[in-house]
Amino acid sequence: LSELADIVGGELHGPPDFRVSRPVPAGDNDPTGITFAESPTYLATVEATGVGAVFVGMDGAESTKPHIRCPNPREAFGRVLAMSWRDLPLSEGIHPTAIVSQDADVHPDAHIGAFCVVEAGASIGVDVRVHPFCYVGEGCRLSEGVRLYPRVTLYRDVWLGERTIVHSGAVLGADGFGYFWDGTRHRKVPQVGGVRIGDDCEIGALTAVDRATAGETRIARGVKLDNLIQVAHNVQIGADTVIASQTGIAGSSTVGARNVFGGQCGIGDHVATHDDVSLAGMTVVRRSIKESGEFLGDRPFPAGEGQRIRAALVKLPELMKRVRQLEDELEALRSRA
Amino acid sequence: LSELADIVGGELHGPPDFRVSRPVPAGDNDPTGITFAESPTYLATVEATGVGAVFVGMDGAESTKPHIRCPNPREAFGRVLAMSWRDLPLSEGIHPTAIVSQDADVHPDAHIGAFCVVEAGASIGVDVRVHPFCYVGEGCRLSEGVRLYPRVTLYRDVWLGERTIVHSGAVLGADGFGYFWDGTRHRKVPQVGGVRIGDDCEIGALTAVDRATAGETRIARGVKLDNLIQVAHNVQIGADTVIASQTGIAGSSTVGARNVFGGQCGIGDHVATHDDVSLAGMTVVRRSIKESGEFLGDRPFPAGEGQRIRAALVKLPELMKRVRQLEDELEALRSRA
Amino acid sequence: LSELADIVGGELHGPPDFRVSRPVPAGDNDPTGITFAESPTYLATVEATGVGAVFVGMDGAESTKPHIRCPNPREAFGRVLAMSWRDLPLSEGIHPTAIVSQDADVHPDAHIGAFCVVEAGASIGVDVRVHPFCYVGEGCRLSEGVRLYPRVTLYRDVWLGERTIVHSGAVLGADGFGYFWDGTRHRKVPQVGGVRIGDDCEIGALTAVDRATAGETRIARGVKLDNLIQVAHNVQIGADTVIASQTGIAGSSTVGARNVFGGQCGIGDHVATHDDVSLAGMTVVRRSIKESGEFLGDRPFPAGEGQRIRAALVKLPELMKRVRQLEDELEALRSRA
Repeated sequence: LSELADIVGGELHGPPDFRVSRPVPAGDNDPTGITFAESPTYLATVEATGVGAVFVGMDGAESTKPHIRCPNPREAFGRVLAMSWRDLPLSEGIHPTAIVSQDADVHPDAHIGAFCVVEAGASIGVDVRVHPFCYVGEGCRLSEGVRLYPRVTLYRDVWLGERTIVHSGAVLGADGFGYFWDGTRHRKVPQVGGVRIGDDCEIGALTAVDRATAGETRIARGVKLDNLIQVAHNVQIGADTVIASQTGIAGSSTVGARNVFGGQCGIGDHVATHDDVSLAGMTVVRRSIKESGEFLGDRPFPAGEGQRIRAALVKLPELMKRVRQLEDELEALRSRA
Repeated sequence: LSELADIVGGELHGPPDFRVSRPVPAGDNDPTGITFAESPTYLATVEATGVGAVFVGMDGAESTKPHIRCPNPREAFGRVLAMSWRDLPLSEGIHPTAIVSQDADVHPDAHIGAFCVVEAGASIGVDVRVHPFCYVGEGCRLSEGVRLYPRVTLYRDVWLGERTIVHSGAVLGADGFGYFWDGTRHRKVPQVGGVRIGDDCEIGALTAVDRATAGETRIARGVKLDNLIQVAHNVQIGADTVIASQTGIAGSSTVGARNVFGGQCGIGDHVATHDDVSLAGMTVVRRSIKESGEFLGDRPFPAGEGQRIRAALVKLPELMKRVRQLEDELEALRSRA
Repeated sequence: LSELADIVGGELHGPPDFRVSRPVPAGDNDPTGITFAESPTYLATVEATGVGAVFVGMDGAESTKPHIRCPNPREAFGRVLAMSWRDLPLSEGIHPTAIVSQDADVHPDAHIGAFCVVEAGASIGVDVRVHPFCYVGEGCRLSEGVRLYPRVTLYRDVWLGERTIVHSGAVLGADGFGYFWDGTRHRKVPQVGGVRIGDDCEIGALTAVDRATAGETRIARGVKLDNLIQVAHNVQIGADTVIASQTGIAGSSTVGARNVFGGQCGIGDHVATHDDVSLAGMTVVRRSIKESGEFLGDRPFPAGEGQRIRAALVKLPELMKRVRQLEDELEALRSRA
């Protein structure tokens, strides 16, 4: 614990040789765990459990447990998380079962795991980690430090920026969904574009990013996509945008920079959102949002208006009754007049 | 048919040597098929088709087809389904193409299919079936009778209880979605926890269950998850809960025991549902549900209230007209007064 | 450019030896790109960019860029897309790492890629392309010209019609979601049926189509499914229906022919839609739709009514205020009377 206090620049209250073995969430009972409490409420939760130790803020209440006072308990906890983290294992160099085209350009300091396929014209940079069962198609480019977790598919012409992470099951570069009706049947519009993803992005498990019809589906630097998201062909997503799980973005739409979308949002096709837009979960965007701010609901509404509509909705059956009553009373008044 | 009647403890009406070759759904025309009819309506449907034979209840109407009277036709049909069922094929022992770490502990009576990867510290119990293309990460534990269908990813520290089934494409243990903004960019919160799933669970195709930030994402015994579901980090799901397809549960939320969720529900983060809660499909839970019962809608509402709101919604344009009329009439009254 | 003009039957305005190297979307600046403009608005966009050349209509305005006049600029552009398209690479015949059962029937002119597994009783027709990491289960049948992109799972008894395409990550034939409560726990209803998909279908990335409990989950010819869609057991989908991403169709429902569903729609179980039904994105269908037409919203409503309800919803808080005011005024009138 005293080592930990030194690392986070905090002040130890408790036995210096107390050993913690892992970070645990608030509410956990692990006597060798350490957690954090940012508020009196959290601290009360922690006190009620058997957890071993806790990070508290500089002005936080006393804890009966061994604790470390530090300016930012959440960040201190993050440091312990980082110390506990280990990546999935991966053998050095190219695994003997991997099938790497002679016409692919693989840096000697890249790792390619078991049962991977790397096609001609793919380029794989220094310190790239490709875990088992990945398919890296023709003309793909994985920049320095890219990490593909097991079982990622990159169709072709998918470019990934430095340090970008793609999680298991994700499919990048599949055909965009485009057909035209020729009077008898749907004919496929060939999808010949690519996908370009910037530096420091993260793509969640089982997320799909389709290639462009022509040109590129583009995700700018620092974008974080959660699991099971759909990004359709020719979508553009601005830098540092964060999108939660199961959201879908339809074809040719443009998401601004620093947007934050909750889960299960639906963005229609050919719409745009301004920079610095936040959408509550399950918000539907059918028309472009032309200003920054928080939005929610079916239209979507600015957050305040949206909340008022939701509140009114609850009272709708009662409102109908009141209107009926008004009509009756008015009728009575009229017949008397 | 007489054999079948014996097996389900029913009474045969029809030729004992009539042969049925497979169970079929009501409405099917297969003359060698057998189906079931729980009600006169279903029986009428069955009578109109060319299906070979039918299970009917003890007090059901006569059928013109060969039929078996039994106390529970649905269960009898289930027996025929079970008799027709065969698992996917899998070779004995460890397939020669599988790559199993010397530091993994694999029971001699486990089956590991072609092109699987099992990392160090993984433990695989008796009668476990791991189909081709599965990735079983470090420290994973597959208890007796677990079945992984082709192409399942377990990142690391994923524990599966006895007889639990995981379907193709599912990803368990991917990183939870956690970042903090450091003033310049989103920094990743390392995700170091695990996933623990109880006995007799079933996880659908292409479903994602993220590992905890710290501690465990926990799914209790008997839980059934359908396809394409998102279970975020540190979620807890209570025993015997059943969740339909495309539902998402955001971080650190707690679902009670014996909950039943329809498809496409959205459960916000840090909320809880009581035991014995049912949600209609597409219900949104933004705040905790603190009592048992049926709920639906956007807030969610108890089922009766929710239905009334939905019904009122339809009349909203008409209501607006009526209010406008009331205002006019009142104005007229006032000017007369 | 003059060659292109000949191919599309258009009239070249500009230097015949101008070289274009790729189709690009409107708004692109690529000086070697060619795009198309169907309307003056599009043409204005194109004029403002550095794109090399453009297809315009017969009666379209002049362009300052090299351009080709043709009857249908969109179709002409589609021709260029088709000329630019190349499929993912695949070796001839059966790749040496593929594991193909001796009891599978594989046409000599089929391609089976690296690390594929083909089980007994599977039948693979002429010109079928199975890309790496596919699992083709027992009794599956891939008709002439079928294409499975990398990492597709077919459990068993999945039949695919001619020229049908299945994208990466899709799972066809996983168990339907069926249980019954035996008083103590959920017992699995064995799922023994199959999946039958017609000719000229396309199944998107990470889409799940479950096998039937008994009988078949059936998708007719010409159906196009986008990514991340759920098709539950015993669903039937009619010919030429097109369904956008993240839509879910619950068990035993029937979708008519030539339906068009936007993204994230939810179709309840045991409902049916008529032929020629269009659903806006996020439409919920809880009861059958018994006529053709456009529908939207939560119920769903015919499009006109749905739009009116949505418009009224926005004014709901204001409406409540107006009703309160009416009540006050009526009260005042009454007390005066």
